[in-house]
Amino acid sequence: RYCHEKNLAVNPQGGNTGLVGGSVPVFDEIILSTALMNQIISFDKVSGILVCQAGCVLERLNEYLEEQGFIMPLDLGAKGSCHIGGNVATNAGGLRLLRYGSLRGTVLGLEVVLADGSALDCLTSLRKDNTGYDLKQLFIGSEGTLGVITAVSMLCPQKPKAVNLAFLGCQSFAKVLETFTTCRAMLGEILSAYEFMDEKCMELVERHLKLSSPVTDSPFYVLIETSGSNSTHDEEKLTNFLEQAMASGLVTDGTVATDEKKIKASHLRERITEALTHEGYVYKYDISLPVGKLYDLVTDVRARLGQSAKNVVGYGHLGDGNLHLNITAESYSHSLLDAIEPFVYEWTARCSGSISAEHGLGFKKKQFIQYSKPREAVVLMQQFKAMLDPKGILNPYKTLPSAP
Amino acid sequence: RYCHEKNLAVNPQGGNTGLVGGSVPVFDEIILSTALMNQIISFDKVSGILVCQAGCVLERLNEYLEEQGFIMPLDLGAKGSCHIGGNVATNAGGLRLLRYGSLRGTVLGLEVVLADGSALDCLTSLRKDNTGYDLKQLFIGSEGTLGVITAVSMLCPQKPKAVNLAFLGCQSFAKVLETFTTCRAMLGEILSAYEFMDEKCMELVERHLKLSSPVTDSPFYVLIETSGSNSTHDEEKLTNFLEQAMASGLVTDGTVATDEKKIKASHLRERITEALTHEGYVYKYDISLPVGKLYDLVTDVRARLGQSAKNVVGYGHLGDGNLHLNITAESYSHSLLDAIEPFVYEWTARCSGSISAEHGLGFKKKQFIQYSKPREAVVLMQQFKAMLDPKGILNPYKTLPSAP
Repeated sequence: RYCHEKNLAVNPQGGNTGLVGGSVPVFDEIILSTALMNQIISFDKVSGILVCQAGCVLERLNEYLEEQGFIMPLDLGAKGSCHIGGNVATNAGGLRLLRYGSLRGTVLGLEVVLADGSALDCLTSLRKDNTGYDLKQLFIGSEGTLGVITAVSMLCPQKPKAVNLAFLGCQSFAKVLETFTTCRAMLGEILSAYEFMDEKCMELVERHLKLSSPVTDSPFYVLIETSGSNSTHDEEKLTNFLEQAMASGLVTDGTVATDEKKIKASHLRERITEALTHEGYVYKYDISLPVGKLYDLVTDVRARLGQSAKNVVGYGHLGDGNLHLNITAESYSHSLLDAIEPFVYEWTARCSGSISAEHGLGFKKKQFIQYSKPREAVVLMQQFKAMLDPKGILNPYKTLPSAP
Repeated sequence: RYCHEKNLAVNPQGGNTGLVGGSVPVFDEIILSTALMNQIISFDKVSGILVCQAGCVLERLNEYLEEQGFIMPLDLGAKGSCHIGGNVATNAGGLRLLRYGSLRGTVLGLEVVLADGSALDCLTSLRKDNTGYDLKQLFIGSEGTLGVITAVSMLCPQKPKAVNLAFLGCQSFAKVLETFTTCRAMLGEILSAYEFMDEKCMELVERHLKLSSPVTDSPFYVLIETSGSNSTHDEEKLTNFLEQAMASGLVTDGTVATDEKKIKASHLRERITEALTHEGYVYKYDISLPVGKLYDLVTDVRARLGQSAKNVVGYGHLGDGNLHLNITAESYSHSLLDAIEPFVYEWTARCSGSISAEHGLGFKKKQFIQYSKPREAVVLMQQFKAMLDPKGILNPYKTLPSAP
C-alpha cells in the first residue's frame, strides 16, 4: 500500500533460482522478499491438502510431507532453494508433471497481495469450487506482475511405496517416440517420468563430471521412472516392458536400476545443466513442440550453426513435449546469438510450439511473446495488467512487452 | 459482431443439460446454439491430444477416442447430450475427476468468440506453455458470460485395459472416511472413483427403479472403481484391500463386481437422480466441504426440516469432497425453501466450503456467490466482466450478481 501511494516499484523475489531474469530488479525496484514467510499453515491427511506461506522452500515442504506419507506434486532441480510462491508465480513444470499434472490443477487456492496493497483471499482448500471466475489462475504463471502471492493451498499426492528407474539406449529419435507409446501402454498408471537426452549430453556428463553411462553407447538415451503402490507389480510391469522393447528392437540396450544404480542414472539426467557450464557460455532455450518434431529443432540448429557453436545438445521431458535446447560456445558472442535468434523462435512458431514451456518469459524473453501468442491475446494481457496494476509498480519490465 | 453493434443479448446453448438455468434465456436473449459445430479437428495418438469444435457431444467424443485406445478425461450422467463446449464453459466435474483431475489441467487450449465478435485463438495443443498469462482459464467455468467457446484442445488419457468395481456397506460415515484412507493407500494409482450414498438413496432406488443392493443393508454404501493397465495386478490389489477392510471391521459387507454385476452396481449410483424425481419436487444442492464434515450437513438439514421434508438424502464424490444434498417434498413449497436457504449456504460458508462445487452458479444461484467468495473477489470478477463484455450482451443475468 505504501509503495502504491508513493509510486514505488516492487520486485517480488523468492529463491531467485530462475533462468530468465524474472526475479531480478531491472532498474531501481524495491526487492520484496518472501524468505521470512516460511510457515506451514495446515495439512489434512485425509484429503492431502497443504496450506502454506509463499516463502516455504520446495524441498522443505516435500520433506515435511514425506513424514506424513505424501509428496509435493512438483519436483525440480532448484528444489533446495526455490520457494513455493515463486514456483506458482512462474507455473513451474519439472519432473513430476507427466504424472501429477500442472500447477493449474494442483493449486487449489492462493492468497495474493494486489498492487494497491489489499489482500485477495482465494485461499480455499477445496478440490472443486465453481462459484464465479477462477481468479487465482490469472496469478499462476504471471511472474509477480499482477500481484504478489503470499500463501498457497495445494493438493498433494500420496508418497509412492515403490519407485523404479530404467535407463535405455535407442538408435534413433523415431525409436525414442515409439518406445514412449509402448511404454505408456504397458506401464500405464505407474509411469511418472519419460526423459530423454542425446549422445552429446552423455559425452559432456562423462567428460566433465566423470559419470559413466549404464548402457552401451547410443545416439539417444531414455530415463523412465515409475511410481506405484506395489513394488512387486511395478517391477513385473517394468521388466515385461523392457523385455518387449528389446525383443522388438526399439531399444538396443537397457537396464532396470537397482538401488545403487538408481542414484547414478538419475544423476546423469539431473546434472546435464551442470556439465554444460563447464563448456563455456551456454545459450538456453525451453521449448514446447508437438512431440513428433521435438528433436528436428536440435538437428536444424546444429546444421545451421555448424562450426560456430561448440555444442548443440537436446534433452528434456519428452512425455510433456518439452525440449531443453542448449548451445555452448567458448564465450558469449553477439553474432552467434543473431544466428540462433530469432531462428529458434521462428522455427517454433511455424510448428505452433511455445517459446517458453515451463520457465517464464521474465525480462529476457518478453519481447518474443508474439512468436507464441496472437496479437489480440497480448493486447488482452496488457489490458489485464493495466486493470490490476494501473501504476505499473509490480515487477516492471517483465513478462509482457510494454503497451503500444 | 452483429449482436454487439445492435446491442442484442446472446445466450450460448450447448446440450442444455444444466441444473442451474445457465443455458436458458431469461428475457429476450438470442439463443446461440453450438449444435452444428460438431467436427473433430484432429487427434494425435502419441500425445493423446484431441482438438474439436465446441458442439461435439461428450459421449460421441469418448466413442471416437475409444476406437483409438483413449478416453475423455471427464465423464458425467448427461454425456449422451451435453456438449464439450458447455462442459468447459461450466468447468464440469463428474466421475473421473479423482483420477484425471479437473478441466483446468486437461484443457490445453480454447478458441473463444469475444463480445465484440472477434475470435481469440488460444487453441494450442501443448502440454506446457508459459508465454504470458493463461487467458483460457478465465473462460473455463465462466458459463459463457465472458466469451463463447467455439473449439477445445484437450489432453486425453489412455483407455484403461482393466476396469473393476467394488460395492461396500459401512456402519457409519466415520468408517466411510477411514475406508477411503485405507483404499487410497492400497489401491494407489489405480483408484479412479470413490463414491458414497446413504441408506435413504438406496431405499429410493430400490423402491422406484426395482434395483437391489448387492450387499446387506447398511447406513452407508461405497462404490469404488479402479482403472489400470494390468487386470491381474488390479484384481489382486482390490481383493487384498477388500480382505483387509473387512477383517479390520471398516466394511461390514462388500463385493467385487463381476461383469454382469458391474452394470447393476454402477446403475445404483448413476440412477439416484432419476429415483429422486419419482418422489415429487426435489431441492438440489451441489456442495464442496472439507471431507470430514461432508455428511454433517445432511444430518443437520434432516434434523432442521423434520417432518416438513419427505426425504433428505446425501450422496456424491467423496474422493473430491463433493456432496450432492437433495431434499424432496410432495410439491414445491416456499416455506420449505425458506427453511433450507440460506441455512445450507450459511452452514457451508462456516466450514469454508463452496456452495457450487461442480455445477455453475447460472441464473439460480448467482446471488449466493458471497457465501463462498469475499466481496473483493466478486468486485474483481465484475471488473473482468465489464472489461470483456462492456455492453453486457453475453449470457446476461448469469453467474455474477449485477454490479452495484
